Amino acid sequence: MQGQYRPLWLNDNGDLEVLDQRYLPHEKRVRTLISGADAAEAISDMTVRGAGVIGNVAAMGVYLLAREFGEDKARIKEEAMILRASRPTAVNLMWAVDRMLDVIEKSDDVLADAKAEAIAICDEDVKRSETIGKIGCDIIEKIMQEKNLEKINILTHCNAGWLAIIDSGTALAPIYEARKRGIDVHVWVDETRPRNQGANLTSWELLDAGIDHTIIADNTGGHLMQHDMVDMVITGADRVTRCGDAANKIGTYLKALAANDNGIPFYIALPLSTFDPESCNGVEEIEIEIEMRSEDEIHIMRGIDEDGKPQELRVTPIGSKGANYGFDVTPARLITGLITEAGLIEANETAIETIL
Amino acid sequence: MQGQYRPLWLNDNGDLEVLDQRYLPHEKRVRTLISGADAAEAISDMTVRGAGVIGNVAAMGVYLLAREFGEDKARIKEEAMILRASRPTAVNLMWAVDRMLDVIEKSDDVLADAKAEAIAICDEDVKRSETIGKIGCDIIEKIMQEKNLEKINILTHCNAGWLAIIDSGTALAPIYEARKRGIDVHVWVDETRPRNQGANLTSWELLDAGIDHTIIADNTGGHLMQHDMVDMVITGADRVTRCGDAANKIGTYLKALAANDNGIPFYIALPLSTFDPESCNGVEEIEIEIEMRSEDEIHIMRGIDEDGKPQELRVTPIGSKGANYGFDVTPARLITGLITEAGLIEANETAIETIL
Repeated sequence: MQGQYRPLWLNDNGDLEVLDQRYLPHEKRVRTLISGADAAEAISDMTVRGAGVIGNVAAMGVYLLAREFGEDKARIKEEAMILRASRPTAVNLMWAVDRMLDVIEKSDDVLADAKAEAIAICDEDVKRSETIGKIGCDIIEKIMQEKNLEKINILTHCNAGWLAIIDSGTALAPIYEARKRGIDVHVWVDETRPRNQGANLTSWELLDAGIDHTIIADNTGGHLMQHDMVDMVITGADRVTRCGDAANKIGTYLKALAANDNGIPFYIALPLSTFDPESCNGVEEIEIEIEMRSEDEIHIMRGIDEDGKPQELRVTPIGSKGANYGFDVTPARLITGLITEAGLIEANETAIETIL
Repeated sequence: MQGQYRPLWLNDNGDLEVLDQRYLPHEKRVRTLISGADAAEAISDMTVRGAGVIGNVAAMGVYLLAREFGEDKARIKEEAMILRASRPTAVNLMWAVDRMLDVIEKSDDVLADAKAEAIAICDEDVKRSETIGKIGCDIIEKIMQEKNLEKINILTHCNAGWLAIIDSGTALAPIYEARKRGIDVHVWVDETRPRNQGANLTSWELLDAGIDHTIIADNTGGHLMQHDMVDMVITGADRVTRCGDAANKIGTYLKALAANDNGIPFYIALPLSTFDPESCNGVEEIEIEIEMRSEDEIHIMRGIDEDGKPQELRVTPIGSKGANYGFDVTPARLITGLITEAGLIEANETAIETIL
């Protein structure tokens, strides 16, 4: 299952290898995970991140547990609870662990079945990502025809590429598909403070793939949109309500407002598993669960020094408080469409009901 | 003319001392300027910044030239052209140098008159800043009454405090006045990427003044406004057209959109000298002159290391492009009011005409 663009794969020994995303974009370092505990640690210390990839690593982690504990299903289940709790807000993670445990429960050949199921979970993501890419790329082509463009400018926020969901992500999947089709794309990459997923990860992916892109401060998108320098916006999502409100990385809402103010199409690309049929009003109902992250991310900046060595710097005065909200909610009224593996749908309850 | 909150003052030798803003917030370092050339350098290397303070240092720079060259008016004028060109887009700078040269032209006692005029230019800013503070604080009190607040949450972007305009700035002047009146204020400080004027300067000013504040990523304001955690927004401006469109630090437009979307009052505080009677449509007419800054500010982050030593780190992958737009334009329709030394006025041509 190793691909050119995969953040995780099984090596010849049956160990799990993952791209250590903490060192990107400055160093491409691979970490080998031998045990379920290794996998849990890789999730909790953010060696791996992104909803899809966390789910994949968790599934593979349960396979590693099967390798460690053989037919001892009770022990596997017990250890899997550590994996299941390795990131508090990751829905995919719990789903993947539960699905693996179901298979193991019913299995007569735990190791073989666990391995096959973990691979199946990954392969399903590959298929989803590919479908989202094709549907999204059809939209890119349509916009280019309508505006008679030779090159299209797409703005994205955070990282929803293959580092987050194998093999080509959600928001970036249409862009990778566009390259396959020979379409000329330029991507505006929001830096995405405070964790810099755009400046560190999306830029690295696009550089690696040879796709034209420019990193900008998160403050910049509105200005670009006012001056017809953005033709469409595509982002991923962490959760979308049944009424179409989308929780995504903090700052997404501001870009949606600017796109709306300037008549620019704003799309969210997501797998169906990201929908939350239980909630409708995202601002009121998702808020309570939105994680408040460490304020250190506001105060401390990470990068490499002159010698290429990873370093941290303090950028704020000692004594000032920082607040670090991870996500915001973009109301459905600002979203042009939702790109899913089941097709392009409008961001409203009636349309979403048809695919859930 | 030394005050507790002044970024420039004359010392006992008649030299100009300035707070070196490049070392803030980590170190409070003073630089002594002895010559006109020193003053020009302090402006061009960004030892000092902010429209008002640049004008003040330029005026003082002409006084330093008078001290160097005595009654040789031709020489003073010649040297003053270097000062006048020390920052390309600073309107205040040119205005201050020209006003100083006019006085010198007509003077029989060049040194005394130049010194008096430079001090007068500074004192006028102090007066303006004080008036803006009082008018802005009346708005704060009105909002608190209407919403029945015991503490008010104000969001600001960039730095328009006393580091930019003596003695208390424009956007921050109402906040300093509120403290004088015993009003309980909490300030959300936008980090203001890519130069971090919020994280570095506004936070430092507020910390120094003992005003409760929290630094946030620029992405955060929309989320806070959706959840009633912001009662008003106040920013400064670099230029406002006669129709009320406001050019200010990049990202201001996004906050104005979010304020508008959530029914939160959005104010711009500015001296009358910031109005540009020549232009009306800010997005179309100001754009052409908006400066495009070095892309290094996107790639390189400045701060202090563990030992408190200033350092620079690369945060983006080598090979990725960056684009660094300095300003955007907030359309008048998103601005609740303009706080000027001539009073609070609406952001439209009819209202602005009455005060120009």
